[in-house]
Amino acid sequence: MPERRPRLYLAGPEVFLPEPVGAGRIKCELAAEYGFEGVYPLDAALDLAGLDKPAQAALISASNEALMRSCDALIANLTPFRGVSADAGTAFEVGFMRALGRPVLGYSNATADLVARSTAYRGAGLLEHCCDGPGVAIEDFDLAENLMIDVAITASGSRLVRWQAKAGERMTELGGFRVCLGEARRLLIR
Amino acid sequence: MPERRPRLYLAGPEVFLPEPVGAGRIKCELAAEYGFEGVYPLDAALDLAGLDKPAQAALISASNEALMRSCDALIANLTPFRGVSADAGTAFEVGFMRALGRPVLGYSNATADLVARSTAYRGAGLLEHCCDGPGVAIEDFDLAENLMIDVAITASGSRLVRWQAKAGERMTELGGFRVCLGEARRLLIR
Repeated sequence: MPERRPRLYLAGPEVFLPEPVGAGRIKCELAAEYGFEGVYPLDAALDLAGLDKPAQAALISASNEALMRSCDALIANLTPFRGVSADAGTAFEVGFMRALGRPVLGYSNATADLVARSTAYRGAGLLEHCCDGPGVAIEDFDLAENLMIDVAITASGSRLVRWQAKAGERMTELGGFRVCLGEARRLLIR
Repeated sequence: MPERRPRLYLAGPEVFLPEPVGAGRIKCELAAEYGFEGVYPLDAALDLAGLDKPAQAALISASNEALMRSCDALIANLTPFRGVSADAGTAFEVGFMRALGRPVLGYSNATADLVARSTAYRGAGLLEHCCDGPGVAIEDFDLAENLMIDVAITASGSRLVRWQAKAGERMTELGGFRVCLGEARRLLIR
């Protein structure tokens, strides 16, 4: 009987790429090289036909939550997405796995601190719909992300990996992901 | 012996306000009106003196995680914060409580759909450090937030409350918070 490989939930905004399934396949193949079974949110191949939008969303959410519960750890792509911070769904998933007591790892394809990114964002004056403002504090712990996320990774025995990607390759660059796979192998296999 | 009131973790970017403790006190007083004990991240009054930044961040994170585990439910201020979506720490906390199986509720002081906000954000061309791009899908389920967050609230028996706040009052407006307190009372007390 083949040995069971630890299962890694692969969180990140790749699900929004033009070819999301292919992007997941590449990550799963890399995970396999490191001894893991990669679990990608789109693996469930849900049949959404005939469902209205609320029912589709409910099915996707339930599927992703069940996939997370089936996994031993998580690697998140925390590259800033449409704002200063990581994709909100990815942040949710990091918290979800953290509460289950499973190791959470992550990388960002931007190297600037949260402080630098927040300052740049504010300088651009893009505050429509938002609740930021000049008197609102910018969390400064020299971290790459909000401390709840960054510390969850540190407390898992790893670190939030920062990787310098080219501007057009922030969604797809996998150097930081590979570092996380090595971290996961150190924590879960060796 | 006084009856134990259900404990509500009050997540949101109010912790970054110029007077964060006062902002929390107001929310806790409102929670008490609805029969709850409000639990605010800054309640722990941690002694951070003499600690370096990593140690400070670690202590705050551990304190918040312990506070969440001590609570029966969560109400999140999901108003977009420095980008299209909710504060990343708040999103993490919604996922954390969801994984523990506790009801998660939330409100946003912006009424526009996630689609409208994402489109506006992209139109402004503010993509520095970010991994968004023209070919990247904008999730469209008529929701106010990423579906993992929005559906977690629906699956808890509530709905993500959208509240029209004035531009300068998005951090402090509490009308949507009151609606959530009523929802929490319906779910947890009555």
